Amino acid sequence: MRIYIDQASGHVGEEVEIAGWLYNKRSSGKLRFLILRDGTGLMQATVSQADVSEEDWAVADELTQESSLIATGTITEDARAPGGYELHVKSLQLVGRSEDYPITPKEHGTEFLLDRRHLWVRSQKQHAILRVRAEVISAIRDYFDSRGYVLFDAPMFTPNAVEGTTTLFETEYFGARAYLTQSGQLYQEAGCMSLGKVYCFGPTFRAEKSKTRRHLTEFWMVEPEVAFMDLDGVMELAEDFTQEVVARVLDRRGEELKTLERNIAALERVKKPFPRITYDEAARILKEKGTDFTYGSDFGGADETVLAEQFDRPVMIHRWPAGIKAFYMKRDPDDPTRSLGVDMLAPEGYGEIIGGGQREDSLEELEKRIEEHNLPRKFFEWYLDLRRYGTVPHSGFGLGLERTVAWICGIRHIRETIPFPRMMYRLEP
Amino acid sequence: MRIYIDQASGHVGEEVEIAGWLYNKRSSGKLRFLILRDGTGLMQATVSQADVSEEDWAVADELTQESSLIATGTITEDARAPGGYELHVKSLQLVGRSEDYPITPKEHGTEFLLDRRHLWVRSQKQHAILRVRAEVISAIRDYFDSRGYVLFDAPMFTPNAVEGTTTLFETEYFGARAYLTQSGQLYQEAGCMSLGKVYCFGPTFRAEKSKTRRHLTEFWMVEPEVAFMDLDGVMELAEDFTQEVVARVLDRRGEELKTLERNIAALERVKKPFPRITYDEAARILKEKGTDFTYGSDFGGADETVLAEQFDRPVMIHRWPAGIKAFYMKRDPDDPTRSLGVDMLAPEGYGEIIGGGQREDSLEELEKRIEEHNLPRKFFEWYLDLRRYGTVPHSGFGLGLERTVAWICGIRHIRETIPFPRMMYRLEP
Repeated sequence: MRIYIDQASGHVGEEVEIAGWLYNKRSSGKLRFLILRDGTGLMQATVSQADVSEEDWAVADELTQESSLIATGTITEDARAPGGYELHVKSLQLVGRSEDYPITPKEHGTEFLLDRRHLWVRSQKQHAILRVRAEVISAIRDYFDSRGYVLFDAPMFTPNAVEGTTTLFETEYFGARAYLTQSGQLYQEAGCMSLGKVYCFGPTFRAEKSKTRRHLTEFWMVEPEVAFMDLDGVMELAEDFTQEVVARVLDRRGEELKTLERNIAALERVKKPFPRITYDEAARILKEKGTDFTYGSDFGGADETVLAEQFDRPVMIHRWPAGIKAFYMKRDPDDPTRSLGVDMLAPEGYGEIIGGGQREDSLEELEKRIEEHNLPRKFFEWYLDLRRYGTVPHSGFGLGLERTVAWICGIRHIRETIPFPRMMYRLEP
Repeated sequence: MRIYIDQASGHVGEEVEIAGWLYNKRSSGKLRFLILRDGTGLMQATVSQADVSEEDWAVADELTQESSLIATGTITEDARAPGGYELHVKSLQLVGRSEDYPITPKEHGTEFLLDRRHLWVRSQKQHAILRVRAEVISAIRDYFDSRGYVLFDAPMFTPNAVEGTTTLFETEYFGARAYLTQSGQLYQEAGCMSLGKVYCFGPTFRAEKSKTRRHLTEFWMVEPEVAFMDLDGVMELAEDFTQEVVARVLDRRGEELKTLERNIAALERVKKPFPRITYDEAARILKEKGTDFTYGSDFGGADETVLAEQFDRPVMIHRWPAGIKAFYMKRDPDDPTRSLGVDMLAPEGYGEIIGGGQREDSLEELEKRIEEHNLPRKFFEWYLDLRRYGTVPHSGFGLGLERTVAWICGIRHIRETIPFPRMMYRLEP
């Protein structure tokens, strides 16, 4: 009977088949200890020369790293073995020989590994990161699905640019021009006027000439949008959501966080309420700390790190100077120089993971903004329709998946948080 | 207390607030029957002139289709009302007036509606389709997540073309050329060698100059790939998966299928085992039925419809002429003129929903195929690495989401199965 390694506990004493790859090998006299991997875990397969045929002994003896094989034998419990179970091998079948596997236990440079990303993903650290990524995605979807949000996928091709054209990827579209989406938000606004609470979760694209550890040209973003929700409501949503996603990973991916040597205590502190400060309060902190931040501008990466260091959990910064936020942000009725936007900074220097706020719901105000920003009005007629036909206050946010995964995993660069990262100088493999 | 319409059953006899839009209105003497929608359902709000202020009565009297409002009142049970509950209104607040809402209960042409897709999504039929779509997506993810598959997102930007360049969208990529993905399969093959069982689920792109009801330029595809799985295994997986997705929609989206007037009996027949026929058997059926199909070619839309009509559930067609299937398909060891591919056709004329099969796992064979197909070898070196370092038999498939949703919903054209469809002549809104 063929089983996966993570099913071993249910088959103690039984004869089973394990199909996988050689992860590592030790020799000791007439014994060969093969560490097998099959994608679900690691298992030690012990081959004793006395127990197997001459051919099978030769296979075990010559087995190279990442060769694929099928091992048949009996499962026993063994507290010392990785995973707690061991296979006592009766027969071995080599499936595919691996010669000179390029990734060895020694240290390799990152470019070397990125060039071999299709093989690098076989390592235990990459397994852990990719499983945390999958868990975060599943937690995000479950959070919204179980609260009555309807998934409302945004299009990838758009005819216009929401936030300027300089960072857009462009493609010919049957004689016209199309741009790859940078955000599904405008479409989610149409969705929430239809279905009340919606979200989209898909790839987004930024052609930023940036080589920092926080940027990918292609990254996934989840964007909820809720009708009749104000700024306070969306801050509550953002903190409740973030708390739940982190708690789910702690609950279900403890093994992976251990592999990554993540400081669990830092994640366990991610409990609401999160601190909420205004842009002005944040600016005061930066002044006190003596950074070279200019009042009125957006925070840079270094500023974000200083701000996040003041708190032991994510911090939300709201009420931004209207001029540095997008045209669709609602102005604060108590101070029209402020927009009702909110950013959430992750702790430990991981920077902004959420951007959102309350949207402008007045047709007249929005028309004025589009004019002030010199935006091509004809592309926004459909968006203005949402204010013409039963406008309501509404709010939403976008969370960048890869930055969130990097933070939760405690890894410095987001390039390891996605199976095949795409960056300014990286389009392969 | 603010509630959503779908929470009414828990608040009978209580005073609550409903925030939403006017869906429809009837008048009868000193009564106004407002049908409200809030995204979670419809509810009748009865306004009696005697119970409300003069101002509120004027609001009720003048309320236009799709105006947004907040109604306060008491919930009562009423079997005759849509949804089974009614709101006896005490006060009404107009939030956003809607003047001359363009989509009225009369019939509109499809182009008219597609131009107003951002408003069309507010209709009950579109709600039903979009909720079925969301359910299908959630069923797909749960199917794989609960069976130990790891989500392994494929990149959107690729440096090369898997199936020719004529149907590719191209973009400038920092001085180089990038293409939008048509399939994540090759990347899933790397994934299954790492994690055993993986899947990706994201947008894919085809620049096909096709205006049929079965084509979108941007559509979502789910692609599982499993190490150590053969053609029989992937056929079992495909039928089990399809059966479960359909059963889940029947179980959870009965109301929506009723709104769509879907023939439920046809969906209830989607039970394994599904019929499996070879390409040759399919060709014989087409000959018997007198179609103008040419042996050796791929099936056209009309051929697929004739084939599907012979069965009361999806049918799988396997062992195709090797020449018309992709270079990476494994040849049948018993007949090298056949490739171990399989297509699944949906019943009722919905055409191919699944394409998949067993992949070529021999380095030598694959090198030969790349040469025969005149493919640029350098782009496939990483893919060949998967055969160099511990190759194993492996199989997978791709399922097109929108065709599947169209079939399950019983709607003719796939353009209504995605919030904002992108087609040859349709890039807006």
